[in-house]
Formats: sequence, structure tokens, C-alpha cells
Amino acid sequence: MLTLGHAQTIAAETLAEGRRLGLAPLACVVLDRGGHILTLLRDENASIYRPEIAMGKAAGCLGMGFGGRELAKRAAAMPMFFNGLQAAFPSGMLPVPGGVLIRDADGGLLGAVGVTGDTSDNDELCALAGIAAAGLHADTGA
Amino acid sequence: MLTLGHAQTIAAETLAEGRRLGLAPLACVVLDRGGHILTLLRDENASIYRPEIAMGKAAGCLGMGFGGRELAKRAAAMPMFFNGLQAAFPSGMLPVPGGVLIRDADGGLLGAVGVTGDTSDNDELCALAGIAAAGLHADTGA
Amino acid sequence: MLTLGHAQTIAAETLAEGRRLGLAPLACVVLDRGGHILTLLRDENASIYRPEIAMGKAAGCLGMGFGGRELAKRAAAMPMFFNGLQAAFPSGMLPVPGGVLIRDADGGLLGAVGVTGDTSDNDELCALAGIAAAGLHADTGA
Amino acid sequence: MLTLGHAQTIAAETLAEGRRLGLAPLACVVLDRGGHILTLLRDENASIYRPEIAMGKAAGCLGMGFGGRELAKRAAAMPMFFNGLQAAFPSGMLPVPGGVLIRDADGGLLGAVGVTGDTSDNDELCALAGIAAAGLHADTGA
Repeated sequence: MLTLGHAQTIAAETLAEGRRLGLAPLACVVLDRGGHILTLLRDENASIYRPEIAMGKAAGCLGMGFGGRELAKRAAAMPMFFNGLQAAFPSGMLPVPGGVLIRDADGGLLGAVGVTGDTSDNDELCALAGIAAAGLHADTGA
Repeated sequence: MLTLGHAQTIAAETLAEGRRLGLAPLACVVLDRGGHILTLLRDENASIYRPEIAMGKAAGCLGMGFGGRELAKRAAAMPMFFNGLQAAFPSGMLPVPGGVLIRDADGGLLGAVGVTGDTSDNDELCALAGIAAAGLHADTGA
Repeated sequence: MLTLGHAQTIAAETLAEGRRLGLAPLACVVLDRGGHILTLLRDENASIYRPEIAMGKAAGCLGMGFGGRELAKRAAAMPMFFNGLQAAFPSGMLPVPGGVLIRDADGGLLGAVGVTGDTSDNDELCALAGIAAAGLHADTGA
Repeated sequence: MLTLGHAQTIAAETLAEGRRLGLAPLACVVLDRGGHILTLLRDENASIYRPEIAMGKAAGCLGMGFGGRELAKRAAAMPMFFNGLQAAFPSGMLPVPGGVLIRDADGGLLGAVGVTGDTSDNDELCALAGIAAAGLHADTGA
């Protein structure tokens, strides 16, 4: 089970990695496997709907069971289906890198991270640093 | 301006106060003055829609410009009006203690906190501890 | 037909009346008879969801065809019906004074004003000043 | 901080510029940096959902932190991501010119303008005239 302690480590280290890399101000949400927020952080200089974007990345991963890179591939192949998912999922669906599933050592699903603020590739890099700092395993869908 | 650092102190100390007092598991959201999340924490044992409750408390305070105790008094006097606000505000409106405005030393509005998980009175006690730990001023509407 | 010029006079004089009376910071919306905004003003010190409240007052009047005072009376008599209206109307329904229909000299419907920020009675006083300044006729539902 | 006075100058001059240029009837919204309306003007001959369009332009800029021209470029490159943003942002997202960030002399973010009614390029021209009239700085994302 993903604890709030895990989630705080993931989110804090995600934003810290962004600062180390000199990225734009980030927001990061960590969801449990039920899709409910454990923690969310938004840099005070990040734009106002970054929480919604972070949610759309993380909840999209949990909603379909794949990391953001696999979702991006599928969205490109089935745009109308993903268009429907974006309207149907209660927190939306943003099928891009920066949405990352969190797994345990056996591959069991624990939750998801959504990061936004810089390029999607950079957002994902920060998520990976956050998940590693918590001693957990990232599934980007690659 | 309320920074993410302020918000993290407020939320972490709010939950810590709940543990010190032996309260039920809490969730706490800290919003900037525009109503946008800076941070949200939900204990992994808190029920799943506690973030929505915390948002409804905090956003209700910002939407009307009063702390939760004043909102509770007004809601009791004008139930139909407040029922309408609950539908009209984008994050809802929960007019009870545990929604607290954050002010600076001059009374300027910085944002709001919403806390939920125990009784509303206890939720508010924890919010007060959190805001005090950040060196800021609480406006409960009392 | 209500012009933007009328609407600007109504809204500007509504807020000016509030300042003359020393009221709390106000927001005021003026809707045409189709329920669409001609102008909206929110004092920069008014709380953030005052536009939503102003809309709920004005659109509620147009939706039912009565000024806010008549709506308040009906809401008290039929609370469950008005509860349903609050969920059903796209901009909500706030059946209180401060929602005022705008009529021409023959009683023809031109639009509606919604004012919020101080007590509902004071909000309405300001709406009356604004409508009078535009040379039009107010229908408060009294 | 963007005042209502600033916002009224911006919106009034935006519509005045449209009349000087002989453009189609315009609507213009000015949002504070939290995305909340300070003022909205819709010409009585502009079509009924112009306020929604103006909101989608302005709120989209604030939500992502870029002017409409940069958003348009990104939307062309990442259509599925922007489609998701359109569903996820509470006031939608219209990534086209005519959404313009308002900045102070130091580049600090003050709010956003959304203009609609004529071509997007012409809408933007009017926004620029409005922002200049208020002595503030426009960020179109170009």
C-alpha cells in the first residue's frame, strides 16, 4: 500500500529534481491505486491549472492501466477512442509522458504520479527521480 | 504571496497536530488566494473523498470571503441561498469549521486551508496549528 | 433592446453606489434577455466567486421570470422545487434580493442584473441605483 | 495587482479599437492572475457565446502560462494533449491568438485578456491596444 509518507517523498523529490535540472516550475500529484490524491504540490510560480494537468496524466494512467508513453502510442493509433476517454474520465485523460504508474518490487500496482510544468520528457524524468527516492518502481509505459 | 513552502508547513503541521491529538486520519488542502491548490495531503487511512471535502471547505471560504464559522452561521440563516452556492461554486461549498482563511499580519488575504477527517471543531484546531507554524494568521470567521 | 452602453452604465453605477454607501466590495453582472452577459464588473477586493453568485441571482430571475424577492418567497414555500432549479439551471439559481429584472417603460423585459458582496438588501439598493442611472425600470419582485 | 480600473480600461479600449478598425462586434474578458473575472464586455450585436470563447482564450493562457500564439503552436504539435486540456480546464482552453497574458514592467504575471468576434489576428490587435492603454505589457506568446 502506498502511504502518505511515500507520496510526500515522491512529490518533494520530483519538484527538487526539477529545481536541480533548472526546469520550469512544476506541479506533481501522487494518487493511490483507487485514483485518490495522497499529495499534490504546485510551485507557487507554476501556472494555475497545473494541478488539473497533473491529475489528467496520473488518473489517465490508472484509468487504463498503462504508463503515459504507452497511452501516447495508443492515442496516436486510436484518436477518436482517446478523445472519448478524455470526456468520460472524471479527471480527464492526458496520454503523454509525465504520467507514470508506481509499482512494488513484484510489479504490483500501488498508484500513479502525474508531473507537469516543463516538457513531457522532462516532467517524466522528475517523476522517475521521485519514485526512485521512495524506493519504489516506475512504469512509464515505455 | 503564499509560497509552496508556507503551504507545505501548514499542511504538514495540520496533520501532525491531528496525530498529536489522536484524531481520526485527516486531509488538508492549502489554496492560494485565487483558489488554486498549492498542496494537498491525505492520510492513506482517510476516506477517499476527503480531498473533495477539504476543497469544499477552503474554496467556500475564498468564494465568499469569510471563514467557515461565519459561513456556518449564514448558512443556518439562509439555507436556500447556501444550497444554491453549493451548486454554483466550481469546487462546491461546505460552510463549516475547518475552512479557515489565511491572512498576513495586516489582514491581507493570502489563501485558505480546508481540513477534514475528525469533527469540524477538531479539524479547525489542526488548521490553526498549521497556520501558526507557518507564522501566518488564521481567520476562522468566529 | 438592452445595449452594452446601458449595461455599462448599470454596472458602473451599481458599484459606484456601493462605494458611496460604504458597502463591502461588489460584483455586478448585466444579462440580456437571452441570459447572456453584456457586462460584468468585480471589484478587485471582492471574493473570487462573486461572479458566480451574481450570475446565479440574475440568471435565476430570467429563468423564472420574476425578481429576486418573489423568488425568495416562492423558494421558502417550495424548497424542494427550488433545490431542483439550483441544480438544473446552467448558471444556478440564487433566489434572493440583488437579482433584479430590467424592464422598459411598458414593462417589456430587457434583461436582468445580479449584484453581490454586501447584504442582499444592500446589493439590491445598488442595482436599483444602476438601473435608474440608465433610465430603465427595475422589477425586484416585491 | 491588476485592479478593476486597469481591467475596465483594457476591455473598453479593446472594444473601441475594434470599432476604429471596423471589425465585427467583439467580446473581451479580463481575468486576474487567479483566473477570476474582473470585467467582461460583450457588444450587444456579438453572438451569444462570445463570453465563453473569450473565457476559453484567456483562461487557457493562464492555465498553461503562455500566450495564445505559443498555445496554438503547441496544439498543432500535440493535438491529443490539447484536446484533453480542453476537457480538463474548468473554463475550457482555446489555443489561438486573442488570448494574451498581461504582465508588469518586470515580466510578472498580472492576468490575461481574451478577445473574440473577428479573426483571431484582429482580436489580438485589439487586445494589444487595450493592454497598452492601461500602461501594461502584453505577452501574446509570439
